[in-house]
Amino acid sequence: MLLPEGTVLTAPESREAYRHDEAEWAPSALPVAVVRPTTAEQVRDVVRLCVSHGAPVVARGAGTGLSGGANAVEGGVVLSLERMDAVIEVNTLERYAVVQPGVVNDDLRSAVAEVGLWYPPDPASSPWSTIGGNVATNAGGVCCVKYGVTRDYVLELQVVTGTGELVRVGRRTAKGVAGYDLVGLLVGSEGTLGIVTEVTVRLRPARPVEQTVVGYFDSLVAAGEAVAAVAAAGVVPSALELLDEQCLAAVDAWKNMGLRADAVAILLARVDAPGSAGDAEADAVLAAFEGAGASWAARSGDREEADALFAARRLAYPALERLGPVLTEDVCVPVGAVPAMLGRIEEIGRRCDVRVATIAHAGDGNLHPLLLTPPGDEAARERAQQAFAEIITAALDLGGTVTGEHGVGLLKREGLEAELDPAVTAMHRAVRRALDPHGILNPGKVVPAQA
Amino acid sequence: MLLPEGTVLTAPESREAYRHDEAEWAPSALPVAVVRPTTAEQVRDVVRLCVSHGAPVVARGAGTGLSGGANAVEGGVVLSLERMDAVIEVNTLERYAVVQPGVVNDDLRSAVAEVGLWYPPDPASSPWSTIGGNVATNAGGVCCVKYGVTRDYVLELQVVTGTGELVRVGRRTAKGVAGYDLVGLLVGSEGTLGIVTEVTVRLRPARPVEQTVVGYFDSLVAAGEAVAAVAAAGVVPSALELLDEQCLAAVDAWKNMGLRADAVAILLARVDAPGSAGDAEADAVLAAFEGAGASWAARSGDREEADALFAARRLAYPALERLGPVLTEDVCVPVGAVPAMLGRIEEIGRRCDVRVATIAHAGDGNLHPLLLTPPGDEAARERAQQAFAEIITAALDLGGTVTGEHGVGLLKREGLEAELDPAVTAMHRAVRRALDPHGILNPGKVVPAQA
Repeated sequence: MLLPEGTVLTAPESREAYRHDEAEWAPSALPVAVVRPTTAEQVRDVVRLCVSHGAPVVARGAGTGLSGGANAVEGGVVLSLERMDAVIEVNTLERYAVVQPGVVNDDLRSAVAEVGLWYPPDPASSPWSTIGGNVATNAGGVCCVKYGVTRDYVLELQVVTGTGELVRVGRRTAKGVAGYDLVGLLVGSEGTLGIVTEVTVRLRPARPVEQTVVGYFDSLVAAGEAVAAVAAAGVVPSALELLDEQCLAAVDAWKNMGLRADAVAILLARVDAPGSAGDAEADAVLAAFEGAGASWAARSGDREEADALFAARRLAYPALERLGPVLTEDVCVPVGAVPAMLGRIEEIGRRCDVRVATIAHAGDGNLHPLLLTPPGDEAARERAQQAFAEIITAALDLGGTVTGEHGVGLLKREGLEAELDPAVTAMHRAVRRALDPHGILNPGKVVPAQA
Repeated sequence: MLLPEGTVLTAPESREAYRHDEAEWAPSALPVAVVRPTTAEQVRDVVRLCVSHGAPVVARGAGTGLSGGANAVEGGVVLSLERMDAVIEVNTLERYAVVQPGVVNDDLRSAVAEVGLWYPPDPASSPWSTIGGNVATNAGGVCCVKYGVTRDYVLELQVVTGTGELVRVGRRTAKGVAGYDLVGLLVGSEGTLGIVTEVTVRLRPARPVEQTVVGYFDSLVAAGEAVAAVAAAGVVPSALELLDEQCLAAVDAWKNMGLRADAVAILLARVDAPGSAGDAEADAVLAAFEGAGASWAARSGDREEADALFAARRLAYPALERLGPVLTEDVCVPVGAVPAMLGRIEEIGRRCDVRVATIAHAGDGNLHPLLLTPPGDEAARERAQQAFAEIITAALDLGGTVTGEHGVGLLKREGLEAELDPAVTAMHRAVRRALDPHGILNPGKVVPAQA
């Protein structure tokens, strides 16, 4: 195998930059080499070389993951898809786009918006994260409460398999049931079942302009009750986000956006039904907020103000990260359990003496309590890890899941074991061994290949 | 194992009734026993017994499948889920329903409609087919062009695995990425990876009343051009069905509905955007029909008339079956290729001297040319089989798939082999062996476990 110059990085300082994703709390190792291919055939050749040497290979996009799924492993190669960043085709009639894995989410969204189309999945990392990483983690986002997650948009994948074959799975037609849903299986498999070298995503026509409803609440639990009330009203908002005062303050301190609110939590809702149906949805959301005891709630007539609030939502994580190490939770509970879960999170934070800032895709019950620790405070770090484990247990108690959208990676392996029936874990192992018979694809992540 | 009386059928005439589904053209065998369990534990016990005896087990719902997926195999047991027909829970806040596999599709839809909710997947067989069978085949239907297929609605499954374990996979929360998407893998796996004993489906709020647009066309190809024109106009109709004159005549001859149209093909479109947005959609569909050369097109103000036309669509298959043996195709092509594919189907019918009646979920490119043969005419049967194979080849030529919604079963095994890369077929086999290590689950269907 002869790779073009610049494809393989071997200098220690270069390799160090690819040691881990945003999950700095998870274990990582210095990769033995970093390969940055520019073609699918190069990816295949690298995987074949790893097969023949029994070397682990960890695929990686932009490294914005929050669970350690892209953390390098001992003796392993990191395969960064960052240079495969071409939008290959946008088909307006069949409404799909074909892209390489290194295309940044926002770049795809812009490219298709130019021709009146829309790619919905919008993780908060959309200015940085890549479609390949979004596919590997089955990324969610703000509008997923109405429009679904990454898996709902992937039609076809070109992948390099665990045996070093370059294949296509799925289809580009609107429907198709020819064989098992290997596309769905690969999406969210965090690089453990194959390495994605091309993605065909389904697109939607551009949608009507959204309307925004904002609510201020004196407690997290009251905000949670408003979320359940929106669901009970039969409305499907196109966004329903929660930010607590700490998130707003951190963004403000960084970007000086003038956001400080006299509230413990705010809810940001959007609706996008066309015409008067959208007005009716906005009214119903407003009524739900007021009925749940909002201290102030209104439809936002000011588009700039509304956009600033959603921008703050997107910036909350990096803003909090500036203050010290952040351990990010990602539980998802039934919508009706959101108030109870928010109460449990507050209680756990108090009891473990950990500062917790909460952002949430509240409308689908996906909560991100962020556990904040002062830099260098080892005792606080341990307390945060204790709180992390207790929040997982609480989510499972309430009928939830240990990860709503970030993935299992390394941080949620124990949680996954707690969530799954041992016979289901065994099914995972069997599938993993079937598709990665040499055990080289991102070993140790999600679920170990052997019990 | 002690099963209650009446659970096991052994009389030859009873077993004969479970020999095959609607795919009478596919091979079948007389099952050695038919088991009709009433609990998941009984299903588990039957599977364990089959494991210990190495006996094949073929799961079956209502037997309305069209690809032979439920056809009994030599020396095998048929496990009919027909008596497990309870709607266990409808949760209006979280918008899901929990049902046993033997619940008939229309019964689920009625049960959730009573509380203002909607289960979209609506195969033409909805008055008879069961949710278990819908899950096994990933059934589509009329409204799937806008609202997706069965897989898009399954949240959680209780299944008996190939090793005889009774487990739950998936979740009931709105989002979740804890482990591989085993739910998606099981949906559409036609009983080869597990046997479903309970299904939790996602529901939507009831939607606005639909508007109907009808178009008459002097040729199938012109109707196909109208379908592509609707897509090009950026409209997503909630239904876009095609029926040719033979389908209408057959339904009329049976039900005397007064449907006979002076046209070669008709298109039935529905749109469901609320308020004036719906009017705009209907106008755009009408313009697309007229622009493609409809001999007559109109928005249907008469709800009864519109409902009668959609009822005719649903009855087309059984109406044609009354006339003689029917071989049902189920190809799906890109929407832009619909006119070309309809032309190819006509040409193949002429050349092979086979009478072809076509119904189609035209809006998503899913075409069902029905190959009609006179009863007892063996030569016509052979010509129909030749046409069937040629239609599959034509669909693949045009970038399509060999099965849009009916499944592979027995009839599409060769087509599947033609469609998939051999390395992808090998992935299927590996997954199958991983989850059915004893090779007892519906052997010989979809893809053989061994090359």
